[in-house]
Amino acid sequence: MQDSQMDNAPLPATNASNVLSVDAMGGDKGPATVVAGLSKFLGKNPDAQVILHGPESELAPLLAKHKITGRVAIHDAAEVVKMTDKPKDAFRKGAATSMWSAIAAVRSGDASVCVSCGNTGALMLMSTIRLRKTDGVNRPAIACLWPSRNPAGFNVMLDAGADISADQDDLLTYALMGASYARNGLDIARPRVGLLNVGTEDHKGRAELKVAHEMIAAAADAGGFDYIGFVEGGDLPTDKVDVIVTDGFTGNVALKTGEGTASLIGDLLRESLLKTPLSMLGALLARGSLKRLQKRIDPRRVNGGVFLGLNQTVIKSHGSSDATGVAAALHLAYRLAQNGFSEKLAARVASVAALAQDVPHDAGTDKPGTKTG
Amino acid sequence: MQDSQMDNAPLPATNASNVLSVDAMGGDKGPATVVAGLSKFLGKNPDAQVILHGPESELAPLLAKHKITGRVAIHDAAEVVKMTDKPKDAFRKGAATSMWSAIAAVRSGDASVCVSCGNTGALMLMSTIRLRKTDGVNRPAIACLWPSRNPAGFNVMLDAGADISADQDDLLTYALMGASYARNGLDIARPRVGLLNVGTEDHKGRAELKVAHEMIAAAADAGGFDYIGFVEGGDLPTDKVDVIVTDGFTGNVALKTGEGTASLIGDLLRESLLKTPLSMLGALLARGSLKRLQKRIDPRRVNGGVFLGLNQTVIKSHGSSDATGVAAALHLAYRLAQNGFSEKLAARVASVAALAQDVPHDAGTDKPGTKTG
Repeated sequence: MQDSQMDNAPLPATNASNVLSVDAMGGDKGPATVVAGLSKFLGKNPDAQVILHGPESELAPLLAKHKITGRVAIHDAAEVVKMTDKPKDAFRKGAATSMWSAIAAVRSGDASVCVSCGNTGALMLMSTIRLRKTDGVNRPAIACLWPSRNPAGFNVMLDAGADISADQDDLLTYALMGASYARNGLDIARPRVGLLNVGTEDHKGRAELKVAHEMIAAAADAGGFDYIGFVEGGDLPTDKVDVIVTDGFTGNVALKTGEGTASLIGDLLRESLLKTPLSMLGALLARGSLKRLQKRIDPRRVNGGVFLGLNQTVIKSHGSSDATGVAAALHLAYRLAQNGFSEKLAARVASVAALAQDVPHDAGTDKPGTKTG
Repeated sequence: MQDSQMDNAPLPATNASNVLSVDAMGGDKGPATVVAGLSKFLGKNPDAQVILHGPESELAPLLAKHKITGRVAIHDAAEVVKMTDKPKDAFRKGAATSMWSAIAAVRSGDASVCVSCGNTGALMLMSTIRLRKTDGVNRPAIACLWPSRNPAGFNVMLDAGADISADQDDLLTYALMGASYARNGLDIARPRVGLLNVGTEDHKGRAELKVAHEMIAAAADAGGFDYIGFVEGGDLPTDKVDVIVTDGFTGNVALKTGEGTASLIGDLLRESLLKTPLSMLGALLARGSLKRLQKRIDPRRVNGGVFLGLNQTVIKSHGSSDATGVAAALHLAYRLAQNGFSEKLAARVASVAALAQDVPHDAGTDKPGTKTG
């Protein structure tokens, strides 16, 4: 088992909440980029330690190049899950892969949060099977951060694509998990939760949304959040909501649409400014401001889809992340690790699960309350 | 009946394909804005004529102010459908409203395309009941234009929110109608159609999407389009697809998310450029380029959600449209009117409906082919 195999010097005795488990392989840019990001991260977090998973022969020279010693232990894992592997095929490769090894280290308690740039589907499948779902969670979700006008600079949206559907019980669970994540990941004491719909009036939308609307409202106090009701796509980047709850199909389309729109506008802005000498000069003078804007909406800064609803926390860093993106995902992981996020989330879901069974299910479905959520 | 009631001088004898029916009431900015947009439109289209619906006492002075004579006939209608009216309440007000009157004029054949800035739900309900669905269409759809990298500058997306769901037969119909609209509204001879999903691999997504995937591929030749398979949210603003097909829930969320993202970036750009004197000077020099960009992504230029699948064409102009936005919707309406779009769309749906019954329905649903689509 990779779990117990420490090929490097063992880490100094420590609290596991300071230790991250990092899959060095499987991203589009390879382990050199992951180690470069790791180096940035360690430089800013003197107490952090990392278990790094991948072929030792590749990783040891990279660590040496960045002069990283003592705070990183390598778990040797020869196989890599490829971006093109189907989840089930990746799972069959199993224990020999760096992804499996990275998950095993949080399963065993050696580390508290796992980070990987690899294949999302494979990571979700392996994580779900190896870490198991938190009691009361039927469908785990991926939460992403969304640039917004909020003071924190971001909203949380979930599910961003772990599952292609969600019923009323799942949506309630997403509300609880998203609020817990906003508290622990973004420092928002009492998050405002909204349910994504095609209009804000109570009578709009699909049947399961109307039921979830009632259930989430009833769970707000126990969940430690304010429920603001239905929100629309246009509310995603605003400051009226902190956590946006939706099914994984809609969430994934919204996320990619937002990214695509931002990318189109960025390209058009560049083309437009390069069109005349006068505007090129103007762009040069406004360079500082344009860079600040670029940084504000830089997708690398919001890197890290967080898998919620498993017994330990797993973060999916974007496959094409550069060193800055990897470092951002590690910072997020470290913050969640230090906050004891996995345990807090489990407690919150458990405390509301009982409550949810008492909520009246009379708002438009004929298959009410068949699960405990 | 409003239909025959011409309070102004009658229009000169003409082909109905030159005549638009315009609801002057119900927009957020009132009839003055609609008439200002009408004036712009008429100035650029010397052969166009318009039947204008609303209280004559308000409309006649507005027309006089813009010196519009001879080419616009007023149909007096005292009642107005409010933005806050529920669709059923609006329908009950019925025949006395300007919206009803505007629809009646295309129903009677006096005009060929109807344009309104009013309440979308009410307009859809009244239009569906009064104009009836085209043979072979189960769910009508709203098609919107999406700024993109395409030579035309736009893609077509439907359904943008007419209905909250769509089955495989509806999605096939949307593909046919969207392709027909792209041909007649955007001059794209052989549109490329894509089906919105959470991934581009054949095995991804909901069951009805996998079935629709097969059905749309099989209908491509008869429908006069190329089917490029599944597309993702990020493909919406690109040049790899002309027509994006999805259900109205997903489409509405995507549309509003894209608008919200563009609006956030625009605001942040402005704030950023106003932050330092140097960048303000830069912005001044780059003003021409920035204005070009603003125009390129100006939502007013893509104004006009087209209701597809009714026996006549109805265009919903944005409720908050200014004169430029109203003029854009009228230009679009006039282009579709002159192309005989309603008839062409009906013929295309009819020709493929028979074909669709022969497509094998074996790709992952247990309730196959129950409708003819």
